[in-house]
Amino acid sequence: MAYDPASPVSIEIEQRRTETGISWQKLADHIDRPLVWTVAAMLGSHPMPAKEAVAAGELLGLSPETVAALQRQPYRTADPELLTDPTIYRFVELINVYGPTFKALIHEEFGDGIMSAINCNMTFERRADPDGDRVVVTIDGKFLPYHW
Amino acid sequence: MAYDPASPVSIEIEQRRTETGISWQKLADHIDRPLVWTVAAMLGSHPMPAKEAVAAGELLGLSPETVAALQRQPYRTADPELLTDPTIYRFVELINVYGPTFKALIHEEFGDGIMSAINCNMTFERRADPDGDRVVVTIDGKFLPYHW
Amino acid sequence: MAYDPASPVSIEIEQRRTETGISWQKLADHIDRPLVWTVAAMLGSHPMPAKEAVAAGELLGLSPETVAALQRQPYRTADPELLTDPTIYRFVELINVYGPTFKALIHEEFGDGIMSAINCNMTFERRADPDGDRVVVTIDGKFLPYHW
Amino acid sequence: MAYDPASPVSIEIEQRRTETGISWQKLADHIDRPLVWTVAAMLGSHPMPAKEAVAAGELLGLSPETVAALQRQPYRTADPELLTDPTIYRFVELINVYGPTFKALIHEEFGDGIMSAINCNMTFERRADPDGDRVVVTIDGKFLPYHW
Amino acid sequence: MAYDPASPVSIEIEQRRTETGISWQKLADHIDRPLVWTVAAMLGSHPMPAKEAVAAGELLGLSPETVAALQRQPYRTADPELLTDPTIYRFVELINVYGPTFKALIHEEFGDGIMSAINCNMTFERRADPDGDRVVVTIDGKFLPYHW
Amino acid sequence: MAYDPASPVSIEIEQRRTETGISWQKLADHIDRPLVWTVAAMLGSHPMPAKEAVAAGELLGLSPETVAALQRQPYRTADPELLTDPTIYRFVELINVYGPTFKALIHEEFGDGIMSAINCNMTFERRADPDGDRVVVTIDGKFLPYHW
Amino acid sequence: MAYDPASPVSIEIEQRRTETGISWQKLADHIDRPLVWTVAAMLGSHPMPAKEAVAAGELLGLSPETVAALQRQPYRTADPELLTDPTIYRFVELINVYGPTFKALIHEEFGDGIMSAINCNMTFERRADPDGDRVVVTIDGKFLPYHW
Amino acid sequence: MAYDPASPVSIEIEQRRTETGISWQKLADHIDRPLVWTVAAMLGSHPMPAKEAVAAGELLGLSPETVAALQRQPYRTADPELLTDPTIYRFVELINVYGPTFKALIHEEFGDGIMSAINCNMTFERRADPDGDRVVVTIDGKFLPYHW
Amino acid sequence: MAYDPASPVSIEIEQRRTETGISWQKLADHIDRPLVWTVAAMLGSHPMPAKEAVAAGELLGLSPETVAALQRQPYRTADPELLTDPTIYRFVELINVYGPTFKALIHEEFGDGIMSAINCNMTFERRADPDGDRVVVTIDGKFLPYHW
Amino acid sequence: MAYDPASPVSIEIEQRRTETGISWQKLADHIDRPLVWTVAAMLGSHPMPAKEAVAAGELLGLSPETVAALQRQPYRTADPELLTDPTIYRFVELINVYGPTFKALIHEEFGDGIMSAINCNMTFERRADPDGDRVVVTIDGKFLPYHW
Repeated sequence: MAYDPASPVSIEIEQRRTETGISWQKLADHIDRPLVWTVAAMLGSHPMPAKEAVAAGELLGLSPETVAALQRQPYRTADPELLTDPTIYRFVELINVYGPTFKALIHEEFGDGIMSAINCNMTFERRADPDGDRVVVTIDGKFLPYHW
Repeated sequence: MAYDPASPVSIEIEQRRTETGISWQKLADHIDRPLVWTVAAMLGSHPMPAKEAVAAGELLGLSPETVAALQRQPYRTADPELLTDPTIYRFVELINVYGPTFKALIHEEFGDGIMSAINCNMTFERRADPDGDRVVVTIDGKFLPYHW
Repeated sequence: MAYDPASPVSIEIEQRRTETGISWQKLADHIDRPLVWTVAAMLGSHPMPAKEAVAAGELLGLSPETVAALQRQPYRTADPELLTDPTIYRFVELINVYGPTFKALIHEEFGDGIMSAINCNMTFERRADPDGDRVVVTIDGKFLPYHW
Repeated sequence: MAYDPASPVSIEIEQRRTETGISWQKLADHIDRPLVWTVAAMLGSHPMPAKEAVAAGELLGLSPETVAALQRQPYRTADPELLTDPTIYRFVELINVYGPTFKALIHEEFGDGIMSAINCNMTFERRADPDGDRVVVTIDGKFLPYHW
Repeated sequence: MAYDPASPVSIEIEQRRTETGISWQKLADHIDRPLVWTVAAMLGSHPMPAKEAVAAGELLGLSPETVAALQRQPYRTADPELLTDPTIYRFVELINVYGPTFKALIHEEFGDGIMSAINCNMTFERRADPDGDRVVVTIDGKFLPYHW
Repeated sequence: MAYDPASPVSIEIEQRRTETGISWQKLADHIDRPLVWTVAAMLGSHPMPAKEAVAAGELLGLSPETVAALQRQPYRTADPELLTDPTIYRFVELINVYGPTFKALIHEEFGDGIMSAINCNMTFERRADPDGDRVVVTIDGKFLPYHW
Repeated sequence: MAYDPASPVSIEIEQRRTETGISWQKLADHIDRPLVWTVAAMLGSHPMPAKEAVAAGELLGLSPETVAALQRQPYRTADPELLTDPTIYRFVELINVYGPTFKALIHEEFGDGIMSAINCNMTFERRADPDGDRVVVTIDGKFLPYHW
Repeated sequence: MAYDPASPVSIEIEQRRTETGISWQKLADHIDRPLVWTVAAMLGSHPMPAKEAVAAGELLGLSPETVAALQRQPYRTADPELLTDPTIYRFVELINVYGPTFKALIHEEFGDGIMSAINCNMTFERRADPDGDRVVVTIDGKFLPYHW
Repeated sequence: MAYDPASPVSIEIEQRRTETGISWQKLADHIDRPLVWTVAAMLGSHPMPAKEAVAAGELLGLSPETVAALQRQPYRTADPELLTDPTIYRFVELINVYGPTFKALIHEEFGDGIMSAINCNMTFERRADPDGDRVVVTIDGKFLPYHW
Repeated sequence: MAYDPASPVSIEIEQRRTETGISWQKLADHIDRPLVWTVAAMLGSHPMPAKEAVAAGELLGLSPETVAALQRQPYRTADPELLTDPTIYRFVELINVYGPTFKALIHEEFGDGIMSAINCNMTFERRADPDGDRVVVTIDGKFLPYHW
């Protein structure tokens, strides 16, 4: 089900991350997987292959139960309350405001179809800027034409 | 209010675009503004400065009423029905699935705060790929720390 | 937007179908497209290529406005009220009851991913049965693995 | 109530399936029932006759409490959050987009009535395809005319 | 779509009924159909066969458009606002309060299955009672077992 | 609150009914109350007088806590999820489809007012039918005129 | 349907009341009916008998269409948006806060049952008070015991 | 939060009231506070001053934890499920049906403003009536003009 | 009803403000009323006394219909879609995040009660700041103790 | 997640505040932070720096778990039920009624953009007034122009 910051798995991971001071990036490097994928998997949005789960468990000192939980096929459901957190809501607002714009651009450039949310990867970067550093998120998804 | 594909302004713009065959990119070039901003403004998500509205109106042959409408301060409200369109919904799903991931990454990298959805620009590109071309969307927003 | 049986386009098509007595199957044969796709396109769930739209318009005697409307890129949004119609609701109920079952089977057989609703076709058939004829709907969608 | 992947019964079944490596198909063969029905019953969407529940319990090594739970008359209620899981949502989207199409086809072919969701069976298959294997779901339900 | 007391068809029927003073029962007798079915059909919940629609139209003096509308396949959707009318809400409340009771009785008496809402007829009667006359509604629906 | 099949009281009653094999009808006869009322009371929709609660408790061998719980004034609230169970939903659908019909008939026959859901009793019967046995539910409620 | 201040009937009545300066109380006296009932009937919450509707129409100078509309059986549905008006919301809040209190008092004093909202009248008065005049609303409804 | 009949405080109070047979009126008299206020405070809708809480605790024999809980500042939130209980729903329905009426009367008599739900008291009485005793609820709230 | 930027009154006022270049502040000064009140009244959230409505009408050159509309008692209802506009949503978010904080502070400082939203005025100012000018909104509402 | 008055952290803080009699203002002074920020942080709407959390813990005598909890990055989500508490709802109502007014003023004074809810501070004061003391809340947020 949707990410729950109060679940035992979430709490153990957060606690171990705090105690060890291991950053998401370091964890991603350790298991040799992309940053965004790694965080998503640790938060329960992707099932982790055994090798990566074990490696993450060793680095952070996680319990066997948590290492096993990371490998289970998840339900990736939406929790409407979660989306009202201001940090997440800004992304919701971007879709509210620019959703029809992306639809128009996709159809003009590619024709009738969608950008896949499954064959899709994302990057997250900090870009230094004299007027204030910036969050740069790139979404890179395969175009899928309606195909009968 | 939310984008309405059946409003007179939407219909006139779409009709003129079809008749003239002018692409969004050509329109953006003509008014010398970024692509995503231009489409958003033409769909009513940004008020257009007079100069850009007039230039767009001349290129497409829009009525004076529509040129005036493009300059009005809009309500950028969300229409839940719109978000169920499959092309738009894939972006909604990405936020549902990866929202907590972006929150975790922003807080670790920047501290307590958000990525602005106001001081924020986006690009849209097609990237050729032998396994199928890809939609590449980049979101570039200023980090805003909670500041008292 | 969602199918609206009271829109001018819907009314004209229904009226012409009633007056001419042309069945959905005959129309599909005439434009040489699959049955379910043809009905969906005539109800506004798929944009029709010009050739098919013109052919359908000639067969049914549709107005040029309707022939043009059939070719426009649609918003395929969901109208919750529509889903309460008993004939449609039975499909909703099947997903409510068997949704987790299909999820479990897809993941066991294919791994982590989804059945595409875009690269997906459907057939509709009547199967004679001494205990009462049956509706047989087949959904045939490409499996898409989560791919980073 | 709706399927809950975190209920004790769900967890025990999933755990035993993982430990024994017994597939859904093997389980269905063992109890001599169709595949989709078997999975649905194990997930709580169908009450299991005693014979099948006991057989399933023996194969998987389930506790008597779980074997008893599988035989109870269930509430088959819908959980809106569950439907947002991407693997399940694709089926929801198909109904959103093609619901009116199926209604139109049913009424033309059969007259006023519905496809039963009760006298209805479903199959699930993997079909090999050089462009990517496909999920094939067949829904086979009895037509029920409105009958006064 | 859901019954709309302000639609042209609804208004014409109500006006003609008021002007002619023809009761629902008289109308039902005239077209030789059950009372509840007749009212439902006149309110758009059942398509009327041509013969009955014409007979009803003659008795009430309805326009050809309305006689045609009565024969169209309807969308029988639910309008949540309608259900808050106090006269209708009492039926909603009965289902809220006694729904689980009927479920328990159906399952004990018939096994796993439902009472059909399609192969189902209803009667409406006034029963005299010294403590105040009573509304008597009988629902008579075929039991449908879950059948695979 | 709404009936909860997982509450301790519900579970104890269901368990004792299963173990003793005592039907709802036998229980109703034992406490000398109508069938539908008895089931509703056992499911928490009616407070039971002490005499009936004790008699039911003796017949089924219920704990004193459950016998006391059966006598408490209940909250008879609606749980929207419960109403999506297919067996209960068919009743919901009947009100959706025929609600305006019953309103029209009540007002014509009785004038402005409602059928009481409080001074109201219901019966449940199985009627044999060669085409499949039928569920027959009769609702018998006092008409209440709007009275100032 | 729910009261709509923008409907033609509402507008005509409000306009004629403004032009003639006739108060609700004067109107109630003229048609010899209670104040609250009279306002409710003029706003479409009660059908008006012909005599009262004609008398109200003469006093205010209403059109025949409006006089006829006042006599029609209304749908008394709830519009959730209306309930957010601050003047109406205070009553909603009282029910939110004191609803369980009234339930407890009714059950203790009268037993299991409800206060009728149909056999129920209300008065509205202004009571002078040195600390600020007060609105005094009295609800007087018949107790209805659950009666089988 | 909203009143919860299953909370430990609610259960203890109800149990002690049942065991001691002390009515709400007797409790109100004992703590020398109005009846409706007393019940509301015991159900958690008003914080009780220490003196009244202690007196109530002594009369009913409540635990110190419950006596302390009665004195805490409550959240008086609304629980939509609670409002569907038939005894409470009748009050909801009165606001649905007569809300615009009370708004019209308040504005005509007092001008632009509201009846306070804070500076507001209520009484509850049983009035004997040969046609059935009646619930009489009086709401007495201060008018507050919009004041800038 | 809720503010509607597309209503004739809204459009006329906005058009006249654009054509005359008269600012909200100038309008407020002209009718000698506070700034926030003036804008709210022009948007339909306060009925305007005749004198102010006429003065505003003269300054802007409004039609008599609009001048009359400004004086009518409004429905001040909430439109959930409006609240998703980013400029308005930031205020919604502040209440989401700081609502319990203001509740805690009000109760500690004043006791049990509320800040009135009726006897309440607000100011709006721009405050220059070298790091970017600031919006300063002051809410000044009378405390109302719960008073029985 | 949203503030929960029944969470262990909330209960411990409230209990210690009651036992020690330490006001919010005294706590804010002790940790040398603004009043509103301090309360918000103690209720979980701001993560507290270690120094402030420790100082607050010492003053109130909080457990190490609670001191640690105060420092965690929170989810600041909205709970719709919380917003119905009358003390909080008055703020909601102000936004419902005056939201479009603030939008109009911001756009006229600053152009297209928003008042930040992140770079934003608030004060809370009691202002003595002979007609009843007043709650004065000041919101001071940086204007952010839409910036591409």
